[in-house]
Amino acid sequence: MPDILLQLSVLLVIIATAAMSASATIQAVRHEFDAFGATVLAVATAMGGGTVRDILLGQTPVFWMTDLTYLATAIPVALIAFFWVRNLDSGGGKRLRLLMYFDAIGLALFTIAGVQAALAAGSPLPVAIIMGCITGTFGGIIRDVLCNVTPIVLKEDLYATISLLGGTLFILLSNVIPNNNVAVWASFTAMLVARFLVIARSKK
Amino acid sequence: MPDILLQLSVLLVIIATAAMSASATIQAVRHEFDAFGATVLAVATAMGGGTVRDILLGQTPVFWMTDLTYLATAIPVALIAFFWVRNLDSGGGKRLRLLMYFDAIGLALFTIAGVQAALAAGSPLPVAIIMGCITGTFGGIIRDVLCNVTPIVLKEDLYATISLLGGTLFILLSNVIPNNNVAVWASFTAMLVARFLVIARSKK
Amino acid sequence: MPDILLQLSVLLVIIATAAMSASATIQAVRHEFDAFGATVLAVATAMGGGTVRDILLGQTPVFWMTDLTYLATAIPVALIAFFWVRNLDSGGGKRLRLLMYFDAIGLALFTIAGVQAALAAGSPLPVAIIMGCITGTFGGIIRDVLCNVTPIVLKEDLYATISLLGGTLFILLSNVIPNNNVAVWASFTAMLVARFLVIARSKK
Repeated sequence: MPDILLQLSVLLVIIATAAMSASATIQAVRHEFDAFGATVLAVATAMGGGTVRDILLGQTPVFWMTDLTYLATAIPVALIAFFWVRNLDSGGGKRLRLLMYFDAIGLALFTIAGVQAALAAGSPLPVAIIMGCITGTFGGIIRDVLCNVTPIVLKEDLYATISLLGGTLFILLSNVIPNNNVAVWASFTAMLVARFLVIARSKK
Repeated sequence: MPDILLQLSVLLVIIATAAMSASATIQAVRHEFDAFGATVLAVATAMGGGTVRDILLGQTPVFWMTDLTYLATAIPVALIAFFWVRNLDSGGGKRLRLLMYFDAIGLALFTIAGVQAALAAGSPLPVAIIMGCITGTFGGIIRDVLCNVTPIVLKEDLYATISLLGGTLFILLSNVIPNNNVAVWASFTAMLVARFLVIARSKK
Repeated sequence: MPDILLQLSVLLVIIATAAMSASATIQAVRHEFDAFGATVLAVATAMGGGTVRDILLGQTPVFWMTDLTYLATAIPVALIAFFWVRNLDSGGGKRLRLLMYFDAIGLALFTIAGVQAALAAGSPLPVAIIMGCITGTFGGIIRDVLCNVTPIVLKEDLYATISLLGGTLFILLSNVIPNNNVAVWASFTAMLVARFLVIARSKK
């Protein structure tokens, strides 16, 4: 993997970590958790997908244990999001929409980061696509299981599907376009637009 | 481990993968999941037990990441089962019974495959029996947790018990009978008959 | 790690295993599980935190697979606790309080054992503190998820907080006091007293 890809991958995972941490905090506020419970949920959600990926790939100690950047991102973001979201005048509806938009950013970025990590570890292509999907969706599954609700990924068909198609698109583009950044941003944008359209259509 | 045992083990796991995939799909239809959610649940259920076993044994990347046979079994079986079960005239009762019979096949075969894998990895006998139980029951536990219901294995005492006794029987027979196939089929049949009797008695 | 520390660590984990096994059994009786389901829940709870820690650290096969002491502790304790608790005259209230006291012992001891294991594996200090918290709290999280209730650790802020502060205290004391036993018992006592005060205050 070229250095630029590796750096990009790390940057992507940090942005996705912040987005998933915020999304989990919003759900924690909706379930009336306090600041501490919200932070625990945020860390488990933001790091859960990559942790499962690293365990399945056999890459232990897992990523956040050797690089403290992720904890240093997820914890402050969770605390800031907690006090910001709790003070929104608006009711549950606006919070739910915010949750879904942040979650979409995490889904798109973690998917790409997961595919990259699996390819770097030598996984076959179908496994790399599934590892992208696991990295993108498992944080949200852990969040929902800990909140004692059926995981959104199982109820909404245009969630994991978008992750699988986005991961496939990323692999295809990586192989036809010399500049890897294009593949990253094109597949990221495609996944994000697709999720945003699904969320906007569900408004009615 | 002799070659024949290894081959048999692989074949058993594929049949069990298909059975658990079908059982999870039936439960997904009962919970009104769509085709995609049902497939995700089926893959998580069919591969969950063996994945937990491989992670505990430290055998990573886990089995389905290096051998695509399992994904290539679980996904088509889930899709076929989804459209077949959804079109059954009968109500939930018949679906529930089908689920339990398929689940019993998976329980019996995964138990044996799990004991074999643990013995091949050098685990002590009590641990091998527990690893057989984990391989046999964790897929169903993951299925039930994802569907937000209390896992059947904790409520029904003649479920994990049968797995533990079946694994013990398999180890005992393996040590007294020269032909290992006999140990496999005898313990498989014993577990299957025991579960079928329990399911039939619960009919009333 | 000096021998005495290692021995102490093993002894602590065994006591904590017994306490968590008993606490899970009490919860199983409250949820009307039978003896077998209670034992499965007890083993998953007592070994769950350390298992997640070992998997994250990459130390596989995990601890209870190579050393049978833990299974030999958790299973008999669960069976004894099951028949003892079920025959208590008192109602659910007394059982709930017993559960919380045993759980507090497990939380305090597993936290120290988890910090020790992470430090021995070369983890940075913040990660060691979090690994102590994971070792101390994940058994209870698994217990609650399997019982289909929202994990206590997410609802009660003075639970994981005490584990994190206790782990921090242990690391601080280990660095200033030559005799490591003092650090162990001082931080254990601090966590236990803190949890007991929280439980006693929640009585009203």
